[in-house]
Amino acid sequence: MTKRSMYCGKVSREQLGEKVTLKGWVQKRRDLGGLIFIDLRDREGIVQVVVSPDIAESSWEAANTCRSEYVLEISGEVLARDSQAVNKKMATGEIEISAQSVVILNKAKTPPFPIEDEGQVNDDIRLKYRYIDLRRNKMYQNIKTRHDIVQSVRSFLNGEDFLEIETPYLDKSTPEGARDYLVPSRIQEGHFYALPQSPQLRKQLLMGAGFDRYYQIARCFRDEDLRGDRQPEFTQIDIETSFLAPEEIQSLTEKMLVKVMKEVLNVKIPAPFPRLSYQEAMDNYGSDKPDTRFGMTLLDVAPVVKETDFKVFQSAIESGGQVKAIVAPQAAEKYSRKDLDNLGKELSQYGAKGLAWVKVTEEGLNGPIAKFLSPVENELTTHVGAESGDLILFVADAANVVAASLGALRLKLGKALGLIDETLFNFLWVVDWPLLEYDEDEGRYIAAHHPFTSPQKQDLPLLETAPEKVHAEAYDVVLNGYELGGGSSRIFQRELQEKVLEVVGFSKEEAVNQFGFLLDALEYGFPPHGGIALGLDRLAMLLADEDNIREVIAFPKNGRAMDPLNNAPGKVSEGQLVDLHLKVIESLKD
Amino acid sequence: MTKRSMYCGKVSREQLGEKVTLKGWVQKRRDLGGLIFIDLRDREGIVQVVVSPDIAESSWEAANTCRSEYVLEISGEVLARDSQAVNKKMATGEIEISAQSVVILNKAKTPPFPIEDEGQVNDDIRLKYRYIDLRRNKMYQNIKTRHDIVQSVRSFLNGEDFLEIETPYLDKSTPEGARDYLVPSRIQEGHFYALPQSPQLRKQLLMGAGFDRYYQIARCFRDEDLRGDRQPEFTQIDIETSFLAPEEIQSLTEKMLVKVMKEVLNVKIPAPFPRLSYQEAMDNYGSDKPDTRFGMTLLDVAPVVKETDFKVFQSAIESGGQVKAIVAPQAAEKYSRKDLDNLGKELSQYGAKGLAWVKVTEEGLNGPIAKFLSPVENELTTHVGAESGDLILFVADAANVVAASLGALRLKLGKALGLIDETLFNFLWVVDWPLLEYDEDEGRYIAAHHPFTSPQKQDLPLLETAPEKVHAEAYDVVLNGYELGGGSSRIFQRELQEKVLEVVGFSKEEAVNQFGFLLDALEYGFPPHGGIALGLDRLAMLLADEDNIREVIAFPKNGRAMDPLNNAPGKVSEGQLVDLHLKVIESLKD
Repeated sequence: MTKRSMYCGKVSREQLGEKVTLKGWVQKRRDLGGLIFIDLRDREGIVQVVVSPDIAESSWEAANTCRSEYVLEISGEVLARDSQAVNKKMATGEIEISAQSVVILNKAKTPPFPIEDEGQVNDDIRLKYRYIDLRRNKMYQNIKTRHDIVQSVRSFLNGEDFLEIETPYLDKSTPEGARDYLVPSRIQEGHFYALPQSPQLRKQLLMGAGFDRYYQIARCFRDEDLRGDRQPEFTQIDIETSFLAPEEIQSLTEKMLVKVMKEVLNVKIPAPFPRLSYQEAMDNYGSDKPDTRFGMTLLDVAPVVKETDFKVFQSAIESGGQVKAIVAPQAAEKYSRKDLDNLGKELSQYGAKGLAWVKVTEEGLNGPIAKFLSPVENELTTHVGAESGDLILFVADAANVVAASLGALRLKLGKALGLIDETLFNFLWVVDWPLLEYDEDEGRYIAAHHPFTSPQKQDLPLLETAPEKVHAEAYDVVLNGYELGGGSSRIFQRELQEKVLEVVGFSKEEAVNQFGFLLDALEYGFPPHGGIALGLDRLAMLLADEDNIREVIAFPKNGRAMDPLNNAPGKVSEGQLVDLHLKVIESLKD
Repeated sequence: MTKRSMYCGKVSREQLGEKVTLKGWVQKRRDLGGLIFIDLRDREGIVQVVVSPDIAESSWEAANTCRSEYVLEISGEVLARDSQAVNKKMATGEIEISAQSVVILNKAKTPPFPIEDEGQVNDDIRLKYRYIDLRRNKMYQNIKTRHDIVQSVRSFLNGEDFLEIETPYLDKSTPEGARDYLVPSRIQEGHFYALPQSPQLRKQLLMGAGFDRYYQIARCFRDEDLRGDRQPEFTQIDIETSFLAPEEIQSLTEKMLVKVMKEVLNVKIPAPFPRLSYQEAMDNYGSDKPDTRFGMTLLDVAPVVKETDFKVFQSAIESGGQVKAIVAPQAAEKYSRKDLDNLGKELSQYGAKGLAWVKVTEEGLNGPIAKFLSPVENELTTHVGAESGDLILFVADAANVVAASLGALRLKLGKALGLIDETLFNFLWVVDWPLLEYDEDEGRYIAAHHPFTSPQKQDLPLLETAPEKVHAEAYDVVLNGYELGGGSSRIFQRELQEKVLEVVGFSKEEAVNQFGFLLDALEYGFPPHGGIALGLDRLAMLLADEDNIREVIAFPKNGRAMDPLNNAPGKVSEGQLVDLHLKVIESLKD
């Protein structure tokens, strides 16, 4: 083998007249006027090679035999293309390689799908042949973007005196949070490791150890049912610090994201990021991760409509609920009565009993409930800022139902109406989260973030009397409607940690059994500490302009948590199970 | 909380007269002449704080109450110490802090062991209270060294156009190699993921995908019985490239290690590294990972001793074995007959039937077999270069037994006699490995590295006829007697991969079942490729001058693969097992 002198995609006029040696894949091969043209591809791009019959016979034979995806080594001279042959669409379109030698390094069968960015290929086929799918330039760019993000993050954190520290993947199952992936122990019969859902307690212990500033690009594992942007394993930019106030951690995070955006996309984003309280976010956007790239906020219309005769509104208000509206600008003509009926039906998944609407026309309000609202028509349109041609949509229900359904409707209509400026990157903080949520199914409070989150100091007395009113010293960073990450101050005193565990339902004994090592640690000189974790997959997805995190993971699992490439998970031998003291129990279903 | 202005350990004369705010742990507290002296510690070091009774009452109270490992916030002025109070042993020994405020941020119980570098504490106690153990400066420095290595490696590889790519931790069990850690699938009853023993096949597939240059600081998992420097999970600097010859990969690795040594320890190591063939290493050092920091190589004395009357030597030679010796310089007086008997007994673990020896004196050879060797005395001492006062030790046995036993004896005596220059970092390559080893237990050939390693081209015909004679295109990098890593060219053609799998005992059907995805991939335009993996834990251990990798891992497991901190692995609920379609089978042993 001759040494490669450069990447195919990097050859330019600078190499004119030079001899280069390239190695790559045949993107396309064609005969034309007695010559053979080969588009040779590597990760950096494609270059055109011309092979003429006066080349050595073995090279001509190689050029003649090769087909798509053959691996070739080609040496040749870099020549300028004739002006009419210049291809402005190709980065290397001004030059071509006049081949002096062509060697086939490996053959290829016809690939199951073409290596083109635009292909529409079934997802499982893409994953089964992932090594071919990843040859598409867009996929290479996605993985490169992910790499760039990670290196930018590291260079920032290293510069801020952080240490990158590895924590165990073979850890212990804890009862809080999602379902654990378990790893049976061979040595300790009937005992199991758990793969970490996050390195939360380990990084807190590192603060107890005085490391002061920790980070890790950490793999995390959750055995949950999979949705669009969930994977059994995902990656987290995991950060923890001692002695810093929430504002300091937020400021660090902002600086880091500003650097990432600049270095990866050359986009300058403003900092500090806007801050919304959790309550403001829910009130105005019906979401704890608002997409602020467009308006159409949720407006409280109860003061206006409470005197009308529309029973649905009245009864919602009387039973302590809300009546809220969003105004879809110039959408009146775009949505038929049937469309709006369908939108209403979709909202039932959020618990909404219905969707009310009126169209604003030059002649007044229009639609099924227009007659009820006519008496307050002017007041209403002024209150919500609606103009002729706008569509006003109402939900009247309990506050959480109004938020969920109108929040979802806002996103749907914003997208459909083209209100979203896709060039924007709107980062923001959602702060002042509630510490706890009441879980109706479990009949107890659960931690809104995790049970190691510190309550806000002024709310401590409420822990006993009105836990649901306690605010957490917690903050989420949001980008374009996606939760990028969450941070908080952690509890660093045993007494308070015991109290919070008690509030979320742990008996004293359970608390010691599960978290005794943490409770003990807090008594040996634990510093005030806090940190944040950002979802790398999601960040990479957004920066690569994709809409599924699978597109920024080299080997993702499919919707059944399976890898079609090697069919993991697989069967194992009886001997392996015996070693682990396990037996598979066949289920009764089917 | 006031913002910290700097680390305790960084305060110096530069801050004289300035006010600083420090946060840290009480290393020591003492009353002296009406003043309170506090040694305040953080990760960067220790500084002396002086509290005088004219400080605010709350501060005095805090200073008065605090004990070892309390967490304090102290503001004060940096003053020069009186010349007689300067402490040259302390980095901050020229200054002290005159406290203006002292706040207790958290209390501490008396720690189970003192935070001192020299403590002799039971290993399990250290791990149970790891968050305290890690407060010791040496442990912080170890973790920092590991961090520095990793960042140096990354900056090198990023500069060489490598992409850092994450591969799955939930992968599939394969029959080759060590025992897998398994992860039961909830969704697919009776199926299991396996945690990867290394990302070997994934990184090869990334080469198939055209990524060209991959690296990952990858966690690897092996469920093996643990020895001194083994852990259930360990970390590998994992590298793969396309189109590079072994020498190019070796040269890249050398550049990387030169950079690491310079940046982490400020040590300049020479490159290229020396190269020994596997055979030379075994012949001269009795080891495939020779420690070349001292001589005392294995010398073949068969030509000299074959004519003597010593039956043990004669029969070894006649049965096709070897007689080899090492010369321990000036060791004759240091080892009694009983010592040497004991050394001989230790060698039985390597299969050696005994150890023969003579002492060289001014009057000739001395010792039980001296009479047999007297006839060749001059020839022998000249042949092995022995002088008066030296001890010559012989093993006569099959070649592998001679190598293993004399190799081990050489290391033991080298250490005991102080022959090893501990300041040296001797990197070297061991090349031309055998492709296969015959496994007596399994009654078949097994891969010396792994079954994806490419045979050397000129040996391909031997694959059918004499597999044990085939050399691999494989190379190990060795540092001071430790295998740091292993690399190789990989097989990139289906036919050859099938052949090698067949030689190591796979039927055609098993090969397709287990490695069908790889075999298929090799047919779709797979480039020639190869790479290397270096053990990060071991590299960090050697650079931190430790002798166990536990000392460079934040949260290692103990010898029973357990973490005494949180008692992982632990029991899980019946419901978790039901979800996973599993039942624990109680073993019959007690």
